[in-house]
Amino acid sequence: MAGHPPSRKRAGRLVVLDGAGAAATRGGSVWLVGAGPGDPDLLTIKALRLLQGADVVVHDRLTPQPVLDLAGPDVRLIDVGKRKSRHTLPQDGINALLVGLAREGLKVVRLKGGDPFIFGRGGEELLACRAAGVDCHVVPGVSAGIAAGAAAGAPLTHRGLAQAVTFVTGHAATGEAPDLDWAALARANHTVVVYMGLSTAPAIAARLIDAGRQPSTPVLVVESASLPHERRLIATLADLGTRTHGLDGPAILIIGEVAALADTETLVELATRRRA
Amino acid sequence: MAGHPPSRKRAGRLVVLDGAGAAATRGGSVWLVGAGPGDPDLLTIKALRLLQGADVVVHDRLTPQPVLDLAGPDVRLIDVGKRKSRHTLPQDGINALLVGLAREGLKVVRLKGGDPFIFGRGGEELLACRAAGVDCHVVPGVSAGIAAGAAAGAPLTHRGLAQAVTFVTGHAATGEAPDLDWAALARANHTVVVYMGLSTAPAIAARLIDAGRQPSTPVLVVESASLPHERRLIATLADLGTRTHGLDGPAILIIGEVAALADTETLVELATRRRA
Repeated sequence: MAGHPPSRKRAGRLVVLDGAGAAATRGGSVWLVGAGPGDPDLLTIKALRLLQGADVVVHDRLTPQPVLDLAGPDVRLIDVGKRKSRHTLPQDGINALLVGLAREGLKVVRLKGGDPFIFGRGGEELLACRAAGVDCHVVPGVSAGIAAGAAAGAPLTHRGLAQAVTFVTGHAATGEAPDLDWAALARANHTVVVYMGLSTAPAIAARLIDAGRQPSTPVLVVESASLPHERRLIATLADLGTRTHGLDGPAILIIGEVAALADTETLVELATRRRA
Repeated sequence: MAGHPPSRKRAGRLVVLDGAGAAATRGGSVWLVGAGPGDPDLLTIKALRLLQGADVVVHDRLTPQPVLDLAGPDVRLIDVGKRKSRHTLPQDGINALLVGLAREGLKVVRLKGGDPFIFGRGGEELLACRAAGVDCHVVPGVSAGIAAGAAAGAPLTHRGLAQAVTFVTGHAATGEAPDLDWAALARANHTVVVYMGLSTAPAIAARLIDAGRQPSTPVLVVESASLPHERRLIATLADLGTRTHGLDGPAILIIGEVAALADTETLVELATRRRA
């Protein structure tokens, strides 16, 4: 790490990091690290090592505290989280921050919920680092949609029910359905996993039904997948809009016949509220 | 664990396992555990704990030895791996084995490459356990397709290039293209990730071109993702069949405009062989 004299602490870190720490000896670097869905036990061993060996960790507002607690005691934490109404730091600002920190010779861990390359905007951060000539690595993680299926016991692919699975994202802000190929998503024998789909759930259900998917198609809704307050319910495309009234956290929709395989003992029934 | 007197070893295990070990005190159980793409550092912390605390680990032939080495020294390992030409144990036999071991009161870890619910047939094993009244849990993992994108620096979703990603599987045995909705997969602004797609790569490329996807669409081919002998190359749909001649390991195809973002410094050029 040019310009940084070795210290007892830093030497200790390099022992912990072995292979993953080698880049740090050549100068600053950025590691785009998938933090998994929220349960700290679902971080990879590699992510844990990097968190413990980083100089600085750049994270979002929704990163659970138990995940941040895994960082080494002397690691600097920077929250660049976005709130719905006001952006704490726009994407360009995050890109510039990562590049700037790496140019100071620091080992930067950019912690991303789930996997950096599944709706994580990790690609934009990677390209910014490349453009700036900054060493950048990507560590995959357990994506929230995959964790949602696992915990509920609903396989995303299953012989005879789903020979393919597609991951799409809703638009959390507008409530309108995103501009997707609904005819393609409406075909049977195929699971559709929607990220950030709660506010757009009624619009998405309507589009899929219009495009030919059966209104009785089951939908598994998983709020806060893998966290202690995770909640799950089963709806259909026909009643998805009313059934999700009681949910307000980040949620995954798993749409397709496999949703009916979810373990019913783990489901919650929500009181429908505010039906004025 | 009914019928098993506590021993020093077993007590030690329960300390290691904390929450995850609770089920073992009630009797046998099956844990379908995603082992990630092959690099042992890409196991989750939870998978590591379970491997260390299991009574028996049931794994496939392709599970890398460094992953198996993470199991505790007294854990019994059972290889039920399938070879292309002869099935060591058919799926029904694996299901029966898992149920039988759990009924002996054992804590069984069924290790699955990648994630158990993405082309892992984990759903079938889960349903078999449920039908038999055996306690069964699913631990998600890093799927090979996601790891392939991460290592190569090719985001599976990316603003302006891919607003969705679909995971499909090739049929390794026949060389024929699988029966999929090719028109849906051929649309632009969408990434298609093919598992076990090497032997069917020419057929898949032909189907996508027939369905309207541009022949110049880039394809990232990743063989043995995350392992020390990982190899990557970039082709197009038009030349995919000839470019993949030199590959023979398990491979992921990442088809779509994002493939062109892969870090070119990490690519290998294969000598085209056997062009008689």
